[in-house]
Amino acid sequence: MNKTMKNAEFMEAAIKLALKAEGFTSPNPMVGCVVVKSGKIISSGYHKRPGMPHAEREALLKAGKRAKGADLYVNLEPCCHFGRTPPCTDIIIKSGIRRVFAAMRDPNPLVSGKGFKLLKKSGIRVEAGLLRREAETLNRFFIKNKKEERPYFILKAGMSADGKMALKNGKSKWITSKESRLDAQKLRKNCDAILVGINTVLADNPYLDCRVAPEKRIKKVILDSNGRIPEDANVFKKSEPRDIFVFTSYMRMAKINRLVKRGVNVIITDRTKRGVDEKVVASSLFKLGVMSVLVEGGSLTAASFLKERLVDEAHLYIAPSIIGSDGLGFFGDMGFKGMREILRLEDTSVKRIKNDILLEGRIKYV
Amino acid sequence: MNKTMKNAEFMEAAIKLALKAEGFTSPNPMVGCVVVKSGKIISSGYHKRPGMPHAEREALLKAGKRAKGADLYVNLEPCCHFGRTPPCTDIIIKSGIRRVFAAMRDPNPLVSGKGFKLLKKSGIRVEAGLLRREAETLNRFFIKNKKEERPYFILKAGMSADGKMALKNGKSKWITSKESRLDAQKLRKNCDAILVGINTVLADNPYLDCRVAPEKRIKKVILDSNGRIPEDANVFKKSEPRDIFVFTSYMRMAKINRLVKRGVNVIITDRTKRGVDEKVVASSLFKLGVMSVLVEGGSLTAASFLKERLVDEAHLYIAPSIIGSDGLGFFGDMGFKGMREILRLEDTSVKRIKNDILLEGRIKYV
Repeated sequence: MNKTMKNAEFMEAAIKLALKAEGFTSPNPMVGCVVVKSGKIISSGYHKRPGMPHAEREALLKAGKRAKGADLYVNLEPCCHFGRTPPCTDIIIKSGIRRVFAAMRDPNPLVSGKGFKLLKKSGIRVEAGLLRREAETLNRFFIKNKKEERPYFILKAGMSADGKMALKNGKSKWITSKESRLDAQKLRKNCDAILVGINTVLADNPYLDCRVAPEKRIKKVILDSNGRIPEDANVFKKSEPRDIFVFTSYMRMAKINRLVKRGVNVIITDRTKRGVDEKVVASSLFKLGVMSVLVEGGSLTAASFLKERLVDEAHLYIAPSIIGSDGLGFFGDMGFKGMREILRLEDTSVKRIKNDILLEGRIKYV
Repeated sequence: MNKTMKNAEFMEAAIKLALKAEGFTSPNPMVGCVVVKSGKIISSGYHKRPGMPHAEREALLKAGKRAKGADLYVNLEPCCHFGRTPPCTDIIIKSGIRRVFAAMRDPNPLVSGKGFKLLKKSGIRVEAGLLRREAETLNRFFIKNKKEERPYFILKAGMSADGKMALKNGKSKWITSKESRLDAQKLRKNCDAILVGINTVLADNPYLDCRVAPEKRIKKVILDSNGRIPEDANVFKKSEPRDIFVFTSYMRMAKINRLVKRGVNVIITDRTKRGVDEKVVASSLFKLGVMSVLVEGGSLTAASFLKERLVDEAHLYIAPSIIGSDGLGFFGDMGFKGMREILRLEDTSVKRIKNDILLEGRIKYV
């Protein structure tokens, strides 16, 4: 009993370390690692950026010879293949580690379990599954990427208690509190890209920057089926042009040329009745290295991504106010015919941010 | 410091006692009282039902001679006039109480302070204002009644996270959880009456009973401007006819006669563009002895009462689900033109009820 507690605590420490690099490891997972001897952490490490050492390597290099006979805790199955860095299984085996606790398997079905097998073959005891749930939540982006070859989509909404994001006349400043809006900026820090529909660009003219982490070069994705984006829109002002991705089904050639010349990515896609095909957007973004996307609206975009079952998670900032049925709803028409069809959030959490409520959860599609 | 703590604890005890009769003292306030000697509670009492002894009387009768030289804690200024029972100031003075701690004055401006004056005149030290805020919250119905001569209105809504109470086709079973619906029943226990619009009667055919407290004879108020209520509606089935109040601006005479013959109260009122005049409904109900009303919908009724600035408090049960803009909003059109006009809740509290959120607050009208 006591021992299990200890084990879980070490794994928690590994997860905490992994989280230090939240928002900066993409396309890699977040990984933290602690090396434990005689019940004490003797060294630790975490993966900081793509191309930098994996957590296990960092921790074991720090431990040096002391790693002999020690236990290693890591939140993901150690890799056994050459990527940008050599395989972690090698250094674990060489270090003389006695036992490896890993919270979860590699989600990539092609490599999953192979790391464990290699370790076991070398006489290392492997215990998989400790705090698996927590580890899976931590790397939910990565899991989605590997399993479905598409980015993880988070929908963010700021709205009144009756689900409105603006008055009928479009006025919306401000529904949620300053504190909520700051909190939402943290979401931007954790994602590779922000996505908005053209109506949001035309109505709000946002910069779409990441105020809480200016070092973060967040990508901006704009769905602009009819090529209406103004070439002097604010979104072009503070960003590197190559961080901007405009998806369109129709844009004048001269405009495309000018944008491309500036370095902006213009991606021509097929259109559906609603506009650009969201599924195509998702797979294109994945191929372009975008592993997580924060969908910030407006209502048509939100509804389209929900309808296409692309939204994985929602963060709803709910202000304690009432706007009335004549206000503009955050979510567009969903066309549900029966109560069993409606979207439900699961694994929800509720937090108060000043007077607002933050409701988070994963979308459950039936 | 320590002493103040003690004082506050005694007042808290009085408030807790008062709450034991929540939902059963109307039109009277909830009052609890403790008698304290040498730092210990020697007796206590609370007001249980109209016509039954006031809290102070009950506590002092229990204390008997021991009350001499003791302190008395009560959440409301003791009364000094004959109502259905003799004035409390008399028995306090006769008992030889040394000090009276009262959380708040009588809200009725005509008597407010007179009780204190009488006690002081008899040499009793009076300390007013201890836990005043808590005491005012406790008796917010009573305060509203005395100050504005109208019932206190609570709006209850069950809705999705995007503010919908039903699908476009009217389907709504069930948006909120069983636990939320049970919790909402407690609100019925605490109010004198439930109020619904005729559309709710026609659509849901509710019984409008109070399942958590069958002994509570909650009144039912139905706004039926065009006299459409079916004479075999469920609302007539489990209730005493005289507990039912139908407000109408037009109903066939024969139908009125049949309802009245059964014992149902039919009140003919002027109509506004929207239907029966909500302000007239409020003042009529007050005259009929209804001191608190739970407005349960539907959307037109909710919006009308909000527009007329009659809703004092809202209890919003928010389910973690998304229905979309084509669903039916709980709140009707409010017609706001600027963000400063929107309704905001203040003194809010947030509670989780299973997976739902209960957001409570008082409505702030600008």
